[in-house]
Amino acid sequence: MTHTLGSIVGALGGQLVGKDLPVNRLAPIETARSGELSFVSHPRYARLIDSTSASALLVPAALSDVASTRVSGHIVADDTYLYFARLTQYWKAAERTALADGHRPAVHPLACVSPGAQLSHDIEVGPFAVVEAGASLASGVRVGAHCHVGPWARLGEGTLLHPRVTIGERCRLGAGCIVHSGAVIGADGFGFAPYDGGRWEKIEQLGAVQIGDNVEIGANTCIDRGALDDTVIGNGVKLDNLVQIGHNVRIGDHSALAGCAGVAGSAVIGAYCTVGGGAVVLGHLTLADRVHISAASVVTRSIAQPGQYSGVFPLDDNAAWEKNAATLRQLHRLRDRIKQLERKP
Amino acid sequence: MTHTLGSIVGALGGQLVGKDLPVNRLAPIETARSGELSFVSHPRYARLIDSTSASALLVPAALSDVASTRVSGHIVADDTYLYFARLTQYWKAAERTALADGHRPAVHPLACVSPGAQLSHDIEVGPFAVVEAGASLASGVRVGAHCHVGPWARLGEGTLLHPRVTIGERCRLGAGCIVHSGAVIGADGFGFAPYDGGRWEKIEQLGAVQIGDNVEIGANTCIDRGALDDTVIGNGVKLDNLVQIGHNVRIGDHSALAGCAGVAGSAVIGAYCTVGGGAVVLGHLTLADRVHISAASVVTRSIAQPGQYSGVFPLDDNAAWEKNAATLRQLHRLRDRIKQLERKP
Amino acid sequence: MTHTLGSIVGALGGQLVGKDLPVNRLAPIETARSGELSFVSHPRYARLIDSTSASALLVPAALSDVASTRVSGHIVADDTYLYFARLTQYWKAAERTALADGHRPAVHPLACVSPGAQLSHDIEVGPFAVVEAGASLASGVRVGAHCHVGPWARLGEGTLLHPRVTIGERCRLGAGCIVHSGAVIGADGFGFAPYDGGRWEKIEQLGAVQIGDNVEIGANTCIDRGALDDTVIGNGVKLDNLVQIGHNVRIGDHSALAGCAGVAGSAVIGAYCTVGGGAVVLGHLTLADRVHISAASVVTRSIAQPGQYSGVFPLDDNAAWEKNAATLRQLHRLRDRIKQLERKP
Repeated sequence: MTHTLGSIVGALGGQLVGKDLPVNRLAPIETARSGELSFVSHPRYARLIDSTSASALLVPAALSDVASTRVSGHIVADDTYLYFARLTQYWKAAERTALADGHRPAVHPLACVSPGAQLSHDIEVGPFAVVEAGASLASGVRVGAHCHVGPWARLGEGTLLHPRVTIGERCRLGAGCIVHSGAVIGADGFGFAPYDGGRWEKIEQLGAVQIGDNVEIGANTCIDRGALDDTVIGNGVKLDNLVQIGHNVRIGDHSALAGCAGVAGSAVIGAYCTVGGGAVVLGHLTLADRVHISAASVVTRSIAQPGQYSGVFPLDDNAAWEKNAATLRQLHRLRDRIKQLERKP
Repeated sequence: MTHTLGSIVGALGGQLVGKDLPVNRLAPIETARSGELSFVSHPRYARLIDSTSASALLVPAALSDVASTRVSGHIVADDTYLYFARLTQYWKAAERTALADGHRPAVHPLACVSPGAQLSHDIEVGPFAVVEAGASLASGVRVGAHCHVGPWARLGEGTLLHPRVTIGERCRLGAGCIVHSGAVIGADGFGFAPYDGGRWEKIEQLGAVQIGDNVEIGANTCIDRGALDDTVIGNGVKLDNLVQIGHNVRIGDHSALAGCAGVAGSAVIGAYCTVGGGAVVLGHLTLADRVHISAASVVTRSIAQPGQYSGVFPLDDNAAWEKNAATLRQLHRLRDRIKQLERKP
Repeated sequence: MTHTLGSIVGALGGQLVGKDLPVNRLAPIETARSGELSFVSHPRYARLIDSTSASALLVPAALSDVASTRVSGHIVADDTYLYFARLTQYWKAAERTALADGHRPAVHPLACVSPGAQLSHDIEVGPFAVVEAGASLASGVRVGAHCHVGPWARLGEGTLLHPRVTIGERCRLGAGCIVHSGAVIGADGFGFAPYDGGRWEKIEQLGAVQIGDNVEIGANTCIDRGALDDTVIGNGVKLDNLVQIGHNVRIGDHSALAGCAGVAGSAVIGAYCTVGGGAVVLGHLTLADRVHISAASVVTRSIAQPGQYSGVFPLDDNAAWEKNAATLRQLHRLRDRIKQLERKP
């Protein structure tokens, strides 16, 4: 796939400086080769320009002069990283158009679509996908191979399900969502009433999952349906792979959770929050807007103030860790001994 | 779906007080609206009754009088939460019956069922499901779309596989089990013999997985087959989503593991245990009955006494955490300094 | 399935001592019964021989005499555990041959294979599997039911995909790989450019995943495609279940990661490393060869020296943990109080 700097600027804006070069790949600046376009997002990385083999660059205005000394053509943009993000989208869209090549969106003959489903005319459904009665697929929806769209589920305009995604009964996704393979939306929440000294009686989960617009959901991530009310994911939320969202959880707009994070039932996470990889948020807690949880930290209480929060045992060589961990088990007593010492005359 | 309080009491017991009202939804007491039925499980939540908009209530006897002041009909039951659990089941079953509406359980024409499989007459198999030779499906079994039931696997009476569940060769589930989408039962355990200074020779996993009655297994949860003997999950065990159970593990009856918990190979967990979300149990350990592990804790030694066990770094704002974590790496030396101080005359 | 000690020695080497007994199962030494073959890998387990009911044994030379006193036939091998690993493979292969029984590898009539895919003549493709245009399957490849092999994906000689594996567009696996059910190789990396005070613009992930020879990948494990360059997994790497590998990660040859481990984007892990279950490696870090991370530890900085590294809060009964955790939040101040005491005359 070849583009020219000029066609890119035509589509995405920015300013072309120097020659309108053809470029055949986007590449990291350290490993880019001749014919490739790379980018630098911040003046502090200026030195990388001196040693790159890229043929063309995307840089902020402050680096335009440096770029001119290295390549014969470059693009200047305000927020280079955001521009780069949109450039990847432009690239991917062109690739997809090239691939499609006369192929028109359609329901694959090996899909199993209920006559009771409501389909827009321009949707795509892959082989061996199942769309149940009452499900509704808006304009431009693409349902990959092996997906299962349950009864009365709804997919908003342009939403993309990669192969092998499960959308449970009555769950709803907004417009422009992307769901990766293996995700399960709408499995039962983990709800049981204890009885008889420790047995568990199932609480059927009668709610569903409600997901906003422009939400991305990673591979093998699970979002459970609510017990009575719905589990709710706001607009623009991004969930990485292998994330667990318990029943009745509510996540505010534009929050992002990294891989293997877990949010237990009925927790409420505000807008513009981030949760690092492997972090755990316990159930029934509330996190304010713009709370940021470091990777692998465990949130055991509600947080009312925005800010960065952490709680990770520091890594050490094993021998040192063993000594410190053993001492940690006596920490409270150590504190008492310090108190005692302080009382000495 | 509308039920009356009378029909509910007829099916589940309890006592109807006041009018035999129709109710069209189960709802949490805080958000319930007119026409809906809600519940209070404990006298300490009595104040919620005063402000609810629910039309009908389910309460313990101690709250019957309060309930009468707010709604014109309510149900009194001994263990209200257990009653509520059964009520959700009653509701769900009625919904399912309404949905089925003359539809009779059957093998979907797009399923791929081996002529060498043994099927009860009243089972259901969804589209694109595969049932291999030698597999046996007892009465009332339902196998969802895209499931794979391997050779000689056995599913007990009434067991339900949601869409896209994998049951490996020779694995056996008891009666009344529920398995959610994406679960993988019977993948190979993680077994390798080291050789040649760090290479890994595969140990084929020749055991299987044996699961009791009334077990529920969450979405994308994995239970590995044993190396030689079987991995064994007791009766009534509940596993949440994204749980990992290593090979040769044994879990006692009625234990429950929350989301993202991991149990390494050959660990033995007793009966009536609970393991919190994201907790890790290392391999070859033994946990007694009624051991409870807090969320995100790591079990590094066997536990012989029932009780609650924890081990989580406390969350703090990031600056405070950094200071404390840095000091923690010198904790053993701090202890020595305290000793030194104590020796001062 | 019955083998004789002689046929095993014929296939795998080692020395037969005593009678050429038939054996019908491999079993752990503690639970083995009559007719079964068991093994002891180290002289320190000699006492287990005295009480076993196994009919035949596999032992190191140092235990040959003890073995003779208990069973009438045994095999002596140098590295007994490695021999055992190969014996499980021998056993499994024989089982598979017996199962196949005249059945020849083929593309199942219910698979959906693009005419634009390149297939060796001796491959196997299961029911409802999808193989897209441009994909190439080398000799002896087996693709299980419900697998999805994306456009231009490549599978090397003898590679096995268990049922329901997703291989994304352009991803490449070497020879002799094994991928377990639910694994997703080549979903999008978690890449977004922030804008507008906290919204996220998607960075399309244009790289792919490149996997070496003899790699094993566990159930429901995810390996994301690179943003621009590829994510790279070396030869002989073993990944357990529910492992998350972020975009642009590079893992060196023969490293092994246990269940629920997570490696964030652009981290580089050396060769012959091990990462324990539930451990987390943060992004953009580098781990040298032969670094070993204990289970549930969090790697927050690069590691240049081989060795064992740990960082886990020690488990305690809940009351003791609460006291110590509370004190830990004041640890830095405790250190200051010790300093103060040391300054006292």
